[in-house]
Amino acid sequence: MKEYKVIEVKRSIFEDNDKDAAKLREELKQQKIFLLNLMSSPGAGKTTLIKRTITMLKEELKIGVMEADIDSDVDAQAIADTGARAIQIHTGGMCHLDADMTRQGIKEFGVQDLDIVILENVGNLVCPAEFDTGSSKNVMILSVPEGHDKPLKYPLMFSVCDVVLINKTDVLTYFDFDVEKCKEYIHIRNPKAKVMFVSSKTGEGFDEWVDWLRKETADWVQ
Amino acid sequence: MKEYKVIEVKRSIFEDNDKDAAKLREELKQQKIFLLNLMSSPGAGKTTLIKRTITMLKEELKIGVMEADIDSDVDAQAIADTGARAIQIHTGGMCHLDADMTRQGIKEFGVQDLDIVILENVGNLVCPAEFDTGSSKNVMILSVPEGHDKPLKYPLMFSVCDVVLINKTDVLTYFDFDVEKCKEYIHIRNPKAKVMFVSSKTGEGFDEWVDWLRKETADWVQ
Repeated sequence: MKEYKVIEVKRSIFEDNDKDAAKLREELKQQKIFLLNLMSSPGAGKTTLIKRTITMLKEELKIGVMEADIDSDVDAQAIADTGARAIQIHTGGMCHLDADMTRQGIKEFGVQDLDIVILENVGNLVCPAEFDTGSSKNVMILSVPEGHDKPLKYPLMFSVCDVVLINKTDVLTYFDFDVEKCKEYIHIRNPKAKVMFVSSKTGEGFDEWVDWLRKETADWVQ
Repeated sequence: MKEYKVIEVKRSIFEDNDKDAAKLREELKQQKIFLLNLMSSPGAGKTTLIKRTITMLKEELKIGVMEADIDSDVDAQAIADTGARAIQIHTGGMCHLDADMTRQGIKEFGVQDLDIVILENVGNLVCPAEFDTGSSKNVMILSVPEGHDKPLKYPLMFSVCDVVLINKTDVLTYFDFDVEKCKEYIHIRNPKAKVMFVSSKTGEGFDEWVDWLRKETADWVQ
């Protein structure tokens, strides 16, 4: 049982979240810290993806994880068990994090010794997309069992993400998931989105994903 | 290609949603209409469950479906293709429906000839739980690929539901889903919740679910 802090963040007092997010992003850039905002539906596999990512990168980069949930500490516990630093953020019922809430988490966490901070946002395809957290990049996971039509139904989420990770490819054969249609729908929403296919369970596709993260982090701190 | 209306609902002007919801519920009871509010994460299988439910009950009960989404009409189209009456509600980016938005949908839909109206809420485990829609009963779907820990992370959603349907049981063997732990976690949040196991794909467990819906509808209109 590894240790991790649990903090309760307060509702933001800032009216202009975009301005506050830009400020936080700049502060983190000065400190050479890459903040990855990871979003998805509940159960799409954010925590498992983070665990495997840490395992693959831990010899070369120091990674810390901020787990945002309405309640429970199961995710922070899972991350702490890998040996990585973790903090659990409770949102007090709120469906997303904004820049000020992210800053509260970062302050409590202490990030000076880290290269990458992964923010696991609340599992939700609607609200988190509306609030810039101050992240360097936004990444989302769409898992195969959710279906290929999600970009049609949750347009904003797909528009704000730099990378869409299609996760759980190990069960592709058990679901009616049309890979080509999915890519087409994502690119309707966001022509620039990179689409990668991964399985956090088997590790399939992780070389491409980890290469991307490594390169973006290197570019960020230059 | 069957026909269905698409309407854009407006942000509610009522301050007291609970009061407004109680009023709508009473109005529907007077009209002998059972309103089922169906909630889940994106991709848990709400639309497929509704389609099979309609197929099993269509000889005995008149069912209409109100599909709420931020964007797209794919769900209303899927329902209309079964021959059931459907309407697509666009929430204008909002993450939930409240009682007034539900009333706007009902008014446009016209429900006088129906026994059951199924409201497919926005795919989201957070926000829809916070707003009483005026429904007779709340039902949620948790799908197997999402994992058994969701009641720990999204407490309110599990607290407000009369029935939790564990869907996609046909893929149970491909996921690390602990059935007993899931039931235990649900009952921590809500000791009265009925838990049923179904597969909308194969029909497994649907007799129990349809029996429940039939009985609740009969009780409601008495």
